[in-house]
Amino acid sequence: MNHNSREKMDALQGVAELKALQQNEPIASFLGMELVELSPGYSRVAMRLRPEYVNFNGLVFGGIIMALADQAFAYATNSVARPSVASQFNIHFIAAARPGDRLLGECRVVRNGRRVGVSEMTITDQDGRLIAKATGTTIPVR
Amino acid sequence: MNHNSREKMDALQGVAELKALQQNEPIASFLGMELVELSPGYSRVAMRLRPEYVNFNGLVFGGIIMALADQAFAYATNSVARPSVASQFNIHFIAAARPGDRLLGECRVVRNGRRVGVSEMTITDQDGRLIAKATGTTIPVR
Amino acid sequence: MNHNSREKMDALQGVAELKALQQNEPIASFLGMELVELSPGYSRVAMRLRPEYVNFNGLVFGGIIMALADQAFAYATNSVARPSVASQFNIHFIAAARPGDRLLGECRVVRNGRRVGVSEMTITDQDGRLIAKATGTTIPVR
Amino acid sequence: MNHNSREKMDALQGVAELKALQQNEPIASFLGMELVELSPGYSRVAMRLRPEYVNFNGLVFGGIIMALADQAFAYATNSVARPSVASQFNIHFIAAARPGDRLLGECRVVRNGRRVGVSEMTITDQDGRLIAKATGTTIPVR
Repeated sequence: MNHNSREKMDALQGVAELKALQQNEPIASFLGMELVELSPGYSRVAMRLRPEYVNFNGLVFGGIIMALADQAFAYATNSVARPSVASQFNIHFIAAARPGDRLLGECRVVRNGRRVGVSEMTITDQDGRLIAKATGTTIPVR
Repeated sequence: MNHNSREKMDALQGVAELKALQQNEPIASFLGMELVELSPGYSRVAMRLRPEYVNFNGLVFGGIIMALADQAFAYATNSVARPSVASQFNIHFIAAARPGDRLLGECRVVRNGRRVGVSEMTITDQDGRLIAKATGTTIPVR
Repeated sequence: MNHNSREKMDALQGVAELKALQQNEPIASFLGMELVELSPGYSRVAMRLRPEYVNFNGLVFGGIIMALADQAFAYATNSVARPSVASQFNIHFIAAARPGDRLLGECRVVRNGRRVGVSEMTITDQDGRLIAKATGTTIPVR
Repeated sequence: MNHNSREKMDALQGVAELKALQQNEPIASFLGMELVELSPGYSRVAMRLRPEYVNFNGLVFGGIIMALADQAFAYATNSVARPSVASQFNIHFIAAARPGDRLLGECRVVRNGRRVGVSEMTITDQDGRLIAKATGTTIPVR
């Protein structure tokens, strides 16, 4: 087997293992986040915004949007280097989401280095409207 | 009444109104976040880490740490300019927290401008150990 | 003239004014940064890395990479809302650049709001290799 | 020699080596940045703002403020783990600086981990006025 095939197999195995692991994930059940796509270095996670996610201003709590981005971030980065832990995360809120919206969090690993990883995330609603964009740093801890 | 007294009264009224508003806050009940201190431009929020907050790697989900920081951020910034909305948030994870920990999220407004605000947040555990540090940008939307 | 034509004309005028303004810009001459493309909400800036840009570790100084990203950021955001001032900037360094490289800094405005703007920047070298990615927040101060 | 003394000696040696290295640093001469204090995990750097640092809006270029923060960041982090490279940097601009100002950039390492470091920076002017606050991530590459 050549080097590229080996790498590809490792990557697919990483994805398969992570898919198995996340099936009984406490935080995913608690917040209602569902993994809808996972490939090496890429993930997509869906979440319905419940009435409980509203804050004192009557708006969807920003921390919930961050949680969705962070979940996509965790899946995409751990699909290529597990375990990886987040060291840093930055988000820009673009438009307000509403209770009832079904949001999609998408993450793409931009750099998968031996010592550090960098990823980009996008949050959109069911109409494709951009809700937030984020980036983050991960450290592989193998 | 002189200018300084007026400003001080406005600030205290902002704090009083926000304290009333947050008593039936859906996200605070849902995540178990409790406002323990609020003064103009400063807040402290406590959260007990439940078993539901664990992710597929068996660690406390980073999004939960961010939610606590964001809640302190929301209270501190809205105590001086309400409503204010978060435009940006950046966090550095310093040490892992464990289920059962009682975390404290603290926020201090560094700049309360007419067009933009800047704040700093710190997350510590019950032993005073530093868990995360964050900063953020708010836009007053009066 | 209809609303869309008016908006388009305003945008093109903003670009023309900014192109004129930047011709004798002190920092651009000092650092050797050249505006190579400008359209409403988009800019591209080039910079040759001089031997003076090296730090004590013998590497290109990160602050120089940030300066290039910031210059593209300033042009793109001011082309749609002038004057706009940067409130926040975040960068991820992806690969090292070398003295002699000709870098390109590119910026795209993601959101051009009345109160706040959000932009994305990319730094690449002459071979198209990704050097850094950045995002930032601007406040229009008209 | 006990463990603590050994660590202290290593730290002081790191500081001494870095002080020697930075004496002929190209970027420091080019931008006029002067190291005024260095101890393990802490640095202070001064820079006079020259007329060349002004941008097309007639304001001091943000990239110059970032460069000063980045220089303090590089010194403080490399004093405890050399070489360390910056992976990420985030800044909030608080107040405008003016040509002629003598700025101080200060950096403190908050976490000096085996795999990753986190630091905080502050920029003030000659009157102690806060100009900017920044944070950053470094990777030790020994």
